[in-house]
Formats: sequence, C-alpha cells, structure tokens
Amino acid sequence: MARVLTSQADDFPRWYQDLVAKAELADNGPVRGTMVIRPAGYAIWERMQAGMDARIKAAGAQNAYFPLFIPESYLRREAQHVEGFAPELAVVTHGGGKELAEPVVVRPTSETVIGEFMAKWVDSYRDLPLLLNQWANVVRWELRPRILLRTTEFLWQEGHTAHVDEADAHDYARRILHEVYEDLMVKLLAMPVLVGRKTARERFAGATSTYTLEGMMRDGKALQMGTSHELGQNFARAFDIAFTGVSGARELAWTTSWGTSTRMLGGLIMCHGDDNGLRVPPALAPVQVDLMVVKDGDGVAATAAKLRDELAQAGVRVALDDRVDTAFGRRAVDAELKGYPVRVEIGPRDLAAGNVVLVRRIPGTKTPIPIADLTRAVTAAMEEDQQALYDSALASRLERTVEVSTVEEAIEASATGWAKVPWSAVGAHGEAQANASGVTVRCLTRADGGVPDSEEETDLVAYLARAY
Amino acid sequence: MARVLTSQADDFPRWYQDLVAKAELADNGPVRGTMVIRPAGYAIWERMQAGMDARIKAAGAQNAYFPLFIPESYLRREAQHVEGFAPELAVVTHGGGKELAEPVVVRPTSETVIGEFMAKWVDSYRDLPLLLNQWANVVRWELRPRILLRTTEFLWQEGHTAHVDEADAHDYARRILHEVYEDLMVKLLAMPVLVGRKTARERFAGATSTYTLEGMMRDGKALQMGTSHELGQNFARAFDIAFTGVSGARELAWTTSWGTSTRMLGGLIMCHGDDNGLRVPPALAPVQVDLMVVKDGDGVAATAAKLRDELAQAGVRVALDDRVDTAFGRRAVDAELKGYPVRVEIGPRDLAAGNVVLVRRIPGTKTPIPIADLTRAVTAAMEEDQQALYDSALASRLERTVEVSTVEEAIEASATGWAKVPWSAVGAHGEAQANASGVTVRCLTRADGGVPDSEEETDLVAYLARAY
Repeated sequence: MARVLTSQADDFPRWYQDLVAKAELADNGPVRGTMVIRPAGYAIWERMQAGMDARIKAAGAQNAYFPLFIPESYLRREAQHVEGFAPELAVVTHGGGKELAEPVVVRPTSETVIGEFMAKWVDSYRDLPLLLNQWANVVRWELRPRILLRTTEFLWQEGHTAHVDEADAHDYARRILHEVYEDLMVKLLAMPVLVGRKTARERFAGATSTYTLEGMMRDGKALQMGTSHELGQNFARAFDIAFTGVSGARELAWTTSWGTSTRMLGGLIMCHGDDNGLRVPPALAPVQVDLMVVKDGDGVAATAAKLRDELAQAGVRVALDDRVDTAFGRRAVDAELKGYPVRVEIGPRDLAAGNVVLVRRIPGTKTPIPIADLTRAVTAAMEEDQQALYDSALASRLERTVEVSTVEEAIEASATGWAKVPWSAVGAHGEAQANASGVTVRCLTRADGGVPDSEEETDLVAYLARAY
Repeated sequence: MARVLTSQADDFPRWYQDLVAKAELADNGPVRGTMVIRPAGYAIWERMQAGMDARIKAAGAQNAYFPLFIPESYLRREAQHVEGFAPELAVVTHGGGKELAEPVVVRPTSETVIGEFMAKWVDSYRDLPLLLNQWANVVRWELRPRILLRTTEFLWQEGHTAHVDEADAHDYARRILHEVYEDLMVKLLAMPVLVGRKTARERFAGATSTYTLEGMMRDGKALQMGTSHELGQNFARAFDIAFTGVSGARELAWTTSWGTSTRMLGGLIMCHGDDNGLRVPPALAPVQVDLMVVKDGDGVAATAAKLRDELAQAGVRVALDDRVDTAFGRRAVDAELKGYPVRVEIGPRDLAAGNVVLVRRIPGTKTPIPIADLTRAVTAAMEEDQQALYDSALASRLERTVEVSTVEEAIEASATGWAKVPWSAVGAHGEAQANASGVTVRCLTRADGGVPDSEEETDLVAYLARAY
C-alpha cells in the first residue's frame, strides 16, 4: 500500500500533522492558533459529546449557557485564578463602533461568571447541590499552538457545581472523574487513561484539588484528557455563593468544576493512530462500516445497497462507497487513513462465490466471508476490535512505563515513556528539577492505583513524563 | 389562582420580561446585552436543536466548526457585508498580554471565514454541492437588547453551501426554508409561520435573495424566526470559491447561507404564552407530564412512582413532583408558569376512587380520569393539544391580519396586527414611508401564498407590521 503519511517512528509530530490534514479532520484557522474542525473530525467530536452529555445528565447535572464575555473585574476577584489566566486572555476593547468603558475578556473558563449567578440562585441549603454544565467555546491565547491539542479557541464542556459541604463537593468531583470521564474514555474512546491527582504545582488556578485523566500517546508522551477540580470555598468567597444552612446560619458553599475538550480528539488520534492513519474505536465511529463496491457489474451495486440496508437495520452505522470511477487502491488508502473500523469489499468475483471481503482496520486482517453471515461477522468484529484497541493501548502503556527510584532516572525514562517513581523520592524540589528538564509530574496515585485525597498521603506514586 | 405575571393586555413587554424571569428561562448577563440561558430555557433550546439538527442532516448538510475570531480584513472583502455588520462588531485588540498587529473581530456570522475554506476545499464540480452547517455563538453588539430576541451574543446554527449553478443554490436555499425551517416551526414549535421573501431593503448584507419565516406574537407584532439566503456569486467572488466545471472551464460557485437562533425561544414564548405563563407544545416540551403528588399518604407516593415509570416506559417525558412540603397552590402556579403541557395531580381522595386528575395546560381543562386510562389519556391529550396550540395561533394570526389597499392604512393596521396590502401599492417609496413610522415590510408572498423568486413579479402581496 502506498505510504501517504510520514511514519510515526520517523517523525511523530509530523505524522500527526499529516494525518490531521489528510484524513480531513481539522485545519488551521486564519487567526494564529485557531482551528477549523472539518466534517470528518466534527462527526467524531459529536459522538464524544453525545456520550459525555448522556453521562453528565445521568450524574444529575443540567445544561445551561453563560456568556462568552466576562467583565475583566470578575477575574480579579479570585487571586490565583487571575494570576493563572491573565497571560492567556483575549480582550475586547471595542464594541458597536465605540471604545468600551470597561474592557471585557473572552472567557478562558467560566468559574467567575457562573459563580456570580450561583450566588443569585442559591438561597437555602434546599437549593443545593446546584449541578450545572455547559457546552461552549473558550479562548486561551496560545503561543505554541498545536492543532486539536493546544489551540487559542477550543470547544469543551465545563461543569460547575455548588454543594453544602466539602464532603459532598469532594464526592461529586470524584464521581465526575470516574463515572463520567473515565467511563467514557475507557468504554467509548478505548483509552486506558491513568487516573490520579495533580500536585500543588500542577493544580488548576483556584483549585484545592485537581484530579486528572492522563493518556499515553504512541510516542510515549502524556496528554491530559480531562480534569475535575475541587475549588474549596475560594470561588464561593469571591462571588458570595452563600446559603442558609439547616441550622439557620449563613454558610459559604463548596464548589467544583470539571472539563473535557476537543483535545480528546487529538488524544484519540495519537493513542490509536498508526502509520496507515487513524483507527477509530467501533463504539465511537460515526462510520463503523465502509461498504466498498470494488467494481460494478453482475449485480454488485444492487447487492451492496441491500447489504447497506441490512446493516443499517441492525443498528450499524454504515456508509456506501460506490465511487467506482476512483481507483480502488486510492479508496482503500483513504479508508485506512480515515480509520473506519470495518471495510466490506464487494466485487463481482467474490459475489459469484457468495462472499464479500471483511477488512478489519484494527487487527489489520482481510477475510472472505459468506454474504449471509455479514451482519453477524461485522457485529462480532466490532465488539472484539473495540476491546483489542483498548488492550493494545494498555499493553503499550504498561510496557513503556518504567519503575525507577530517583528523579534523575525518571527524567531519563521520560525520553521514551513514563516513569513511575515514589513521590517521596521526588517532592516539590524534585518536581522543579524535572520541570527544568521539560518533564512534569503527570499525577500521583496510591500504590494500589487509587486516587489520593492529598499529596501528603504516604506511599504515593508519581508518574513523570513529557507531555503535550 | 394568584396572579404572578403582569397581564399581556396591560403591558406585553413587561409580561414577557416577567415570564422569562419567573419561569427561570433566562437572565441578563453582566456585560450589557449578553444573556444566561438557565436550565429550564436551555432544555427547550436543546430539543429545538435536536429537531433542527436531524432535519439539517436529512437535507444532506454536515456539521463542522469554524473559528470565533475572524481577521478584520475578511469582512472588508464583500462590500455590502462589511457595511451591514461594521456597526455591530466586537473587536479584540489584545491577546496573550500584547496588542495584536491586526485586530480580530468576533464573528457576527461566518460567511467570510467559511468562504475562505470553501475556496480551499473545492476544486472540481465533483466537490459540489458542499453542504456545511455549524452550531455556534455569534456576537452583534446590540444597542437596544431584549432578552432572547436581540442579544449581543446568541446561539445559532448557520448553514453555508456552495453549488455549481444558480438553480441548484436556489433550490437548496428553498429546501432549507421549507423542509427544515418551516417543517420544524410548524410541527415541533406549533407556530404558523408566514413564509415569504424579504424586500431588497430588508435583505441580508451580501445576499441576492433572502427568504424569511415570520411569526406573529400575541401582541400582534412580527418576529423573524429564521432566514435563508441566496448569496449569488458575491462571496464566491470575494473569496475565490472556484471550480473546474464539466466543460473544463474555471467557474465561480454559487453560495447560500441560512440561520436560526435562540431567538426562536423568545418567539415561542410570545406566540404561545398566556397570562398564567408559558405554554410549551407537547412535541417540544422537555417535561411533557408533571406528575404532582398533591398530598402524601395512603400509598400516593408509591402509586405516583409506578405511574411515572409507566409513562416513561411509554416514551413520555415525565417529571415527578413530590415536594409535598411546598404548598400545592404554589407548585400548581409554578407548573402553569413553566408551561408543562400536562399535569397529573394525584392525591389520597382521588386515589381512593381509583382516579387521578388530568390538568391540560393548553385548553386549560381539569378532568378526573381512571388511573388505568392514564397513559392513553395523556398521549391523546398531547396529540390534540399540539394541534390545538397551532390552530389557535393560526386563527389568531388570520384574525389579526387586515387586508388594506394603501400604505397609510397598512401603517394604521400595524398598530394592532399585520397588514396585508398589494406590493404594487407599496413599492420602495411606500416601504420607506412605513419604515419612518416604525413599520416594516415583513415579507412578500404570491397571491396564493407561494414564495416569489423576485420582488418584480406581478400580483405580489406585502405583509407589513411592527416587529421585534
């Protein structure tokens, strides 16, 4: 098969750029750092959104929408928050042909404006928990943009909740982490994310605890796929989110926030893609089966249409490719690039023998099967391959994670994968040392893989890596 | 029942503001003209989106996403377009802590940036039609904002398509108008929109034809619910959207654009709401049945839970209100305000008789029915009331539309409703005269109600009204 991509081994970043362009997933926008998400990329994002939205609603949160423009003064109310975001802000100074009296910022995230409204809507403990989510675009001015991974504008969901006490906020931030984010990433994206706690240095600006889900890319680097934060009473204090408690006393609420973005699409590509292109997990794929008419004649087109209907009837997302004017080889290369999980090739010769050819993108197999068996075979292949993709990514992550005992060794191991090292051997000092070498502490876990409540717990394990 | 809203007859704008606030649909944002869409409002919007998105996809368009920020220079490439939008632009002059070399505008609409990418993606006639849609926020600085109707930021879908010739572009713009927009507004929103053509004066900035769907509000004013535009070759010329035609010659494409927004939510409220609150069409309603436990005891709660499951099983969107601590009257007022199509009241006395009470928001009836008959009765009521809401809005529109023969009479008739007048009696001069009195030509139709291809056709009818 003709090589259309730079190989991952030769130049991983170049492979990624090539793939994003050639699979028509996304394009750079005219303003530096912005992006266009093309239909093929957006269709995958839409299915991620649907899966996420259903899980968020199952966790009891309701969708709402808050403004894009935030008064500059709002950001200043939470000291760490403004310090974290000030360097990345886009500022609108003119509106409706006039200079504005107070400049407004384009939201980099919405804790502040949502905090303002939570304060209005919450009055009694009966109004809590208040569980909100929004799907929106946000802007963080990026000096070193990378398409889908770090862009000046990106799409995301951001959840914001208020609770009566710390325990309830804690439980909800963790529930989102596991029941919503981890569940989606594992089951739908087939990504074996490592779930842990960020160190104080890596925490979200304004949070008391930040939890993270880290994915390993096929070059051994890490990508933060999503985060869930406990914000303590920091934003409640800044925006006066207060309520009358059961006892009748006025109390400050405890808030959380949590987000996942179009960056997940970049993570999916870099976790599962190979030298022939994208590999989309069957459960996620907008097109699960690419039904390809190899050559017309002898009733091939009619059979293909019948099989398309049969598969669609069985709930399979199927697309018919009957562009017989275009060379078969070119279409096959394109299908590999786009990562359709299953390709069914149907041509006069196979048809005469009562067969079609089942080409599975994930294991890379190509097998003739009886036509009568198609739906069953496709369904079984998709189920197997969804699991196989996960298993292979997990095996690769475990293989490329090296247990070491010092920061120096961890920095060295980060050249090719992740380093697992006792947190007691790192600490704030070792973390700074690693950072100086371009390596970060991705997260802390307990020895048994559990997510710690504090970085002061004993026997914690730190994962260090280079990251996107 | 306690009056919680200003009556429509007393002060319609005040009624609207009251309702939006008290039904918890939306709130004003901190930056003037922006808004917060609260969960109750957003849930309705989500269902409008789902209905629209399915229809857009059925019409063959694919979703994509284009950047929020557009170089100022892009807008200048189409002379009428920049003239139309320049007064409404929000301009970002600072990003990442620095003044930008070229200021960027926040998209007021995306013809320009999408035109730029269409030019890259289209090469041959085989690439056409290119049918794109995006769900996004846009910003148009509003000097006289009105919540959900005219806001500085709003949410919308904007479709953008490119075609090989004028006829194909024309057909598609009209297909969207009827099969997508009119179909959704009539069937889902129960709104008898008037579909017609905008005059040259009212056309979209840069269009050659603008088609519109106009709704009548309950104060007799008009609201533009959506528009579909033929853009001729104006944007294709400005952005060089060219292709090699069948003959091998290089040709400019013909483009269209079309949009509907959160303004539909404002239209829905003002078309169907009454002095007791919102009335949501059953087909659209996020909560179709409000199952209200009047008073607990004697197995009421258990029966209510059973009925909830039974209704949900039958595909009805049902919410259980068992807040028996809150006074029944207050909850009933709240249910009327929020406009749930059906309320089922269940209390010990009715239950003892084997009954529940079916309260229908649209006709305003209240009838005891046998429990065993609930699902059937609810389903039948919703179907009837969906139609009744449409019929009543249509009757009201027809009743408040007065046939007149001069511009002067049309201006007078616009004080209380719409005026229908021969376009030949108006013309550009009469239109300017009407505009000076705050009355606009909402649209032109043919005598048989059809949508004209040009305002030069003979025997056209003009509808004049005051509008939001």
